[in-house]
Amino acid sequence: MPEFLQLLPPAEALARLLEQLPTQPRPEEVETSAALGRVTIFPVLAPHPLPDFARSTVDGYALRATDTHGASESLPAYSSVVGEVMMGVESAFTLDANQCALIHTGGMLPNGADAVAMVETTQSVRAGEVEVMRAVAVGENVLRVGEDVNTGDEVIPAGVHLRPAEIGGLMALGITHLPVVRKPQIGIISSGDEVVPASAEVHPGQVRDVNSFTLSALIEQAGGIPVRSGIIPDQAQLLHGAVRQALDECEAVVVTAGSSASARDLTAEVIDSLGPPGVLVHGVNVRPGKPTILAVCTGNGDQTPKAVIGLPGNPVSALVIADLFLVPVIERLLGISRPRLRASLRARLKINLPSQAGREDWVPVRLTGGDGILEAEPVFGKSNLIFTLARADGLICIPANATGLSAGEVVDVFQN
Amino acid sequence: MPEFLQLLPPAEALARLLEQLPTQPRPEEVETSAALGRVTIFPVLAPHPLPDFARSTVDGYALRATDTHGASESLPAYSSVVGEVMMGVESAFTLDANQCALIHTGGMLPNGADAVAMVETTQSVRAGEVEVMRAVAVGENVLRVGEDVNTGDEVIPAGVHLRPAEIGGLMALGITHLPVVRKPQIGIISSGDEVVPASAEVHPGQVRDVNSFTLSALIEQAGGIPVRSGIIPDQAQLLHGAVRQALDECEAVVVTAGSSASARDLTAEVIDSLGPPGVLVHGVNVRPGKPTILAVCTGNGDQTPKAVIGLPGNPVSALVIADLFLVPVIERLLGISRPRLRASLRARLKINLPSQAGREDWVPVRLTGGDGILEAEPVFGKSNLIFTLARADGLICIPANATGLSAGEVVDVFQN
Repeated sequence: MPEFLQLLPPAEALARLLEQLPTQPRPEEVETSAALGRVTIFPVLAPHPLPDFARSTVDGYALRATDTHGASESLPAYSSVVGEVMMGVESAFTLDANQCALIHTGGMLPNGADAVAMVETTQSVRAGEVEVMRAVAVGENVLRVGEDVNTGDEVIPAGVHLRPAEIGGLMALGITHLPVVRKPQIGIISSGDEVVPASAEVHPGQVRDVNSFTLSALIEQAGGIPVRSGIIPDQAQLLHGAVRQALDECEAVVVTAGSSASARDLTAEVIDSLGPPGVLVHGVNVRPGKPTILAVCTGNGDQTPKAVIGLPGNPVSALVIADLFLVPVIERLLGISRPRLRASLRARLKINLPSQAGREDWVPVRLTGGDGILEAEPVFGKSNLIFTLARADGLICIPANATGLSAGEVVDVFQN
Repeated sequence: MPEFLQLLPPAEALARLLEQLPTQPRPEEVETSAALGRVTIFPVLAPHPLPDFARSTVDGYALRATDTHGASESLPAYSSVVGEVMMGVESAFTLDANQCALIHTGGMLPNGADAVAMVETTQSVRAGEVEVMRAVAVGENVLRVGEDVNTGDEVIPAGVHLRPAEIGGLMALGITHLPVVRKPQIGIISSGDEVVPASAEVHPGQVRDVNSFTLSALIEQAGGIPVRSGIIPDQAQLLHGAVRQALDECEAVVVTAGSSASARDLTAEVIDSLGPPGVLVHGVNVRPGKPTILAVCTGNGDQTPKAVIGLPGNPVSALVIADLFLVPVIERLLGISRPRLRASLRARLKINLPSQAGREDWVPVRLTGGDGILEAEPVFGKSNLIFTLARADGLICIPANATGLSAGEVVDVFQN
């Protein structure tokens, strides 16, 4: 398992991992009011049409369109007002020819009516009568039954993240509970002889465990449940036991390696021993994050192929790489039907950024300005300093086929 | 309080609301591991430097830079290997001139060393001795003490949303608890005689309460706590009582009005009666959402000025307008130091979209394609159909100073 024999481009590395991962999302019933951010596991079908009665879209007079034929300001149509449509109830009356009823936005069309004349196009001449000064067509100013959805329509496909709008749509249909994908548990193992818990007293030579917590936060954002297995020393047997146990308990496992080359090799060997197929990718042509390990392991209780991702130990690389590889794995486990569309901020790069052709670079930048276009200024600092990322507003990508970006270029900044 | 006497542009309407809102975020102590998305209430200062010992950034040999002066492949410097730096501990030995120690990435520099020669630039010639084939400078391949942060540095300002990177930075400094802004409670009142609970049996003429739940979801996303007061009929006294109670219990209140003009006027009157100053804006030059009401009310137990937002009753308008006005209010209550930078997706508009000059339009679009640039196709449907929004991937804005957008134009799509 020596690393870097072949450095794959990130997209190809990810594809190699995902193609070997089966996905069988498991259902869980939740209340719709608590379903924000959850993912549908089955398509949602409309149990009834929406709206389920014809509604007025304006304040005005419900009537028969044919009665207004040819009406104009100089030659209005006259109509008798037989009543008012009260909100939230069905009217008891039925309209005949040349009759109308006062109606409010959202009111239910009374029997006999097929259109609504806006109040602005009418005039009250004497008690109980209005002049309609503009002809209306059948269905004008009316939401017809089923105009939004019809019975049986697939209103939300499977594999969709529920946003406020979907929550509203479900409620409009009276769907107050629904099955969603159970959140996948993602195991996190921090390895490294120098790593101690964040709450521990730190002796010279030791560093606090940062990765368990940055990765937990990222997993939570992506819709998974982080399961922290703690800190494991750089010893094959201990690491093997920890990964094996995490594989039993979780749907995917992420291991941050100790920072030396030998610790990384150890991590790769341990992960590979939990195959087949084991390590698929060892080394990705990306900076930071070259020593990334992507694997699929079946060495667990139920022999389901599960993703195991070995991340570089340094916190910045670990976080950048987890965003590139772990988040898509979580989306796969959630059964997301459509690859993530990553929104960005557009900003003008302040300085030249050279890079090595063939390698994809992710550079933390700070955004300044705001009126007009933003300016992106790279945050300097060695790549293994966690506050380099904390000081940045986002990352820009220098693609593999470029030898850098030029000052003044407009770049996409991805918030992190 | 008649509406629409003067239609303000949305940005001006928002400014008028925010300038009258004091903000006194209240603190709450949380565990750092559970602080994702929370907002700092005080600046965070570094209790010690990071790193707090000099660390190697490579695998190689720790040594004195001066010993390698002039070293080259043809004339290497010879150095005796006196030991190996173990990970996580301080070395017991001290290096003298022409001595070195094997060191791994992240290892602590031993006493006497001031640089590290990368293993790739060295050669082991005989046991206990290496040739260094390239000169190194003092500090080369070393993270020096305080290179990331120094004691007392403001590492995270007040009013900052905590992302995974900040969580990591806090953990690196051993800050396992911190004070954050307590989440503001936002009251939600759905008014309308036609509105019934989503779980109720629906009779002809009635519609289910959608807004309470779309707004709850949006408030949750923005970092607030939704407090649903239920559905209030269109009666001044009942509505007054409900808004007054919500004002007592919450830091801001949002009321969705009944859908008729008279119900909207009723809402405006009730809100205004809970001033001073009461209604500041009634009518905004935006579509959807023209009948928006923005108010500041002091008619509550502690007389604190609190924002009250009256939203149109139709679910699409309510959600679009809440995003424009309620989210900034929540950010103000959270003490966010910097206005939200809204990331977008860039897409090519598929058709012409006319609009009225002077009015800002928000149009739901569906995105297709994906290789190369996305295409944005407006989702047709009357604006009050909730699934119009659920079918959309985001919204595009037609600015007030435009008379529309043209097919083929590249537009910013804001995900909703």
